[in-house]
Amino acid sequence: MKLSYRPFELLLKHTFTISGHSRASTPLMLVEIAHEGFIGYGEASMVPYLGESSQTATDFLSKVETAQFKLPFDFAAIHIYLDSIATGNTAIKAAIDIALHDLHGKLTNTPCWQLVQSNSALMPPTSFTIGIDTPQAMREKGIEAKAFDIIKVKLSGEDDKLRIAAIRSVTDVPLYVDVNQGWTDRAVALEMIWWLFEQGVVLLEQPMPKHDVEGNAWITSQSPMPIIGDESVQRLADVEKAIDVYHGINVKLMKSTGMFEAKQMIDKAREHGLKVLIGCMSESSCATLAAAALAPQCDWADIDGPFLTTNNPFVEPAFANGKYILSDEAGLGLKLK
Amino acid sequence: MKLSYRPFELLLKHTFTISGHSRASTPLMLVEIAHEGFIGYGEASMVPYLGESSQTATDFLSKVETAQFKLPFDFAAIHIYLDSIATGNTAIKAAIDIALHDLHGKLTNTPCWQLVQSNSALMPPTSFTIGIDTPQAMREKGIEAKAFDIIKVKLSGEDDKLRIAAIRSVTDVPLYVDVNQGWTDRAVALEMIWWLFEQGVVLLEQPMPKHDVEGNAWITSQSPMPIIGDESVQRLADVEKAIDVYHGINVKLMKSTGMFEAKQMIDKAREHGLKVLIGCMSESSCATLAAAALAPQCDWADIDGPFLTTNNPFVEPAFANGKYILSDEAGLGLKLK
Repeated sequence: MKLSYRPFELLLKHTFTISGHSRASTPLMLVEIAHEGFIGYGEASMVPYLGESSQTATDFLSKVETAQFKLPFDFAAIHIYLDSIATGNTAIKAAIDIALHDLHGKLTNTPCWQLVQSNSALMPPTSFTIGIDTPQAMREKGIEAKAFDIIKVKLSGEDDKLRIAAIRSVTDVPLYVDVNQGWTDRAVALEMIWWLFEQGVVLLEQPMPKHDVEGNAWITSQSPMPIIGDESVQRLADVEKAIDVYHGINVKLMKSTGMFEAKQMIDKAREHGLKVLIGCMSESSCATLAAAALAPQCDWADIDGPFLTTNNPFVEPAFANGKYILSDEAGLGLKLK
Repeated sequence: MKLSYRPFELLLKHTFTISGHSRASTPLMLVEIAHEGFIGYGEASMVPYLGESSQTATDFLSKVETAQFKLPFDFAAIHIYLDSIATGNTAIKAAIDIALHDLHGKLTNTPCWQLVQSNSALMPPTSFTIGIDTPQAMREKGIEAKAFDIIKVKLSGEDDKLRIAAIRSVTDVPLYVDVNQGWTDRAVALEMIWWLFEQGVVLLEQPMPKHDVEGNAWITSQSPMPIIGDESVQRLADVEKAIDVYHGINVKLMKSTGMFEAKQMIDKAREHGLKVLIGCMSESSCATLAAAALAPQCDWADIDGPFLTTNNPFVEPAFANGKYILSDEAGLGLKLK
């Protein structure tokens, strides 16, 4: 089994701003694991503020011994091994996990969504994210988003009402809102949530800083719409902490170390009556197709990565009526451009 | 505890046609159970083809001894008692169950949605049903439905594509389709489902006759969208029969004998990985608010009864952005007009 990798700079269609950060591209590490003539593709998306980089990913990968990846893959054992190399490094661990899932699917001639026991008919629609910008620019992006049934808007606590009004001037589709911990006063936040509810917002992510457990829990108890924990919930051990704090959790492969632990997080959330949104970072078709394979097990999907980039190294995913269409091809169904 | 009741003819805004049946009104039986100055309201909707009528309801009610309804209500025992009076009669049993839930809420100063442990923030949007009609009339109804985010269309196997085209000429919202067992050839049905999928249909109910278990199961296995069993699933004992036949079930209080067994059906469906749509018959605010109390536990809601009638005896339910808004009032939160 041969592991290879290369850094790749994923260019964004629009400079992307969320609370406190702004960027025009995202560094990826593209991973390939080859065996018996098949290649499994994996991807790490390393958004700068989460601590991973091409350098940390290369350091991690240099320590990975592919001899540990015995067939048939025992993903539980593989993840114990990966976590034993170093803590953190969740994105590059995800890249390896995704490549091994793709390879496993190809070796067994099975689509990845079948490997993780998804039912393709239950695919939820995917929202299309519009970053913070001037009202005029957001209006233009709203027009660009017309292929999607749901728009996700990033708010920050500044000009929030103007931004929603700009979107509403071009579309009346349901909206998701992501605050990315941007609100600090819980009473003001709740008043804003009720205003957003009246504007047709149907879901809201991470209203308050992740460490303000009590503030987020209070908002959840008072909110007319589901409140989802994102920054608060990274890995499996965080799921139980979300009970009574959020209505649901945002699962992202780059946080969860890949598909294996994401599936465990979804199952654990279900067990405790938590809803699940599956999300993504700035990603190419590779990591988003891995997320799409799990999406039918989730309530909501926000995996718009490939539609927000100009240099996707893979063919765009099959997509119609606002939803991913899962392919019957083995593995993730990826094709290099 | 005093039981009283009166028949009521619920007038429909539009003559309503589903496969093989057409009508302009629906007979209801409105039930009141009074205790300690509080009145619990209940409602039976007796659509003609299901076998109940004012006469059968009156016969059933004349046998009900309110001495059996001891406080605090033991709904399991009450339902064993109601089922012991006679089999069938599910709508009038539902009327009693709903009135007792409303009364229980008022006696304990608790909203019914809290009694059944719903989380009001998780309310799904409700679809608005458009019955079979000429393309021109359906186009007009499409305009009338603009307050709703989802439209449900009844198809029958005749002129189905024309009907969808008529709706699509006025709106691009997601559609639910209810075939009411109207399709007989599974290959033709599947081809139609793929065509509907391309038109933005996101859910389909009861494609084939309920007795064709194999045909419905085959369609479910091949479908790109969730297939829901409705006529196939009446009561709790039917839920397990839906596994591997449908992706989910349609729970209606008039089939389930009310809120108590509907809640059991939802829990049983969840246990087996089945999705849940909560539906209604032609109903006033009373039975639909009882369904709305359970709706946050369901994946989809189709409880548009009060919006399709001209003589609702109760005040219209609170509704905004395509969703019921659950009230903090005790019981169902009903007010007589």
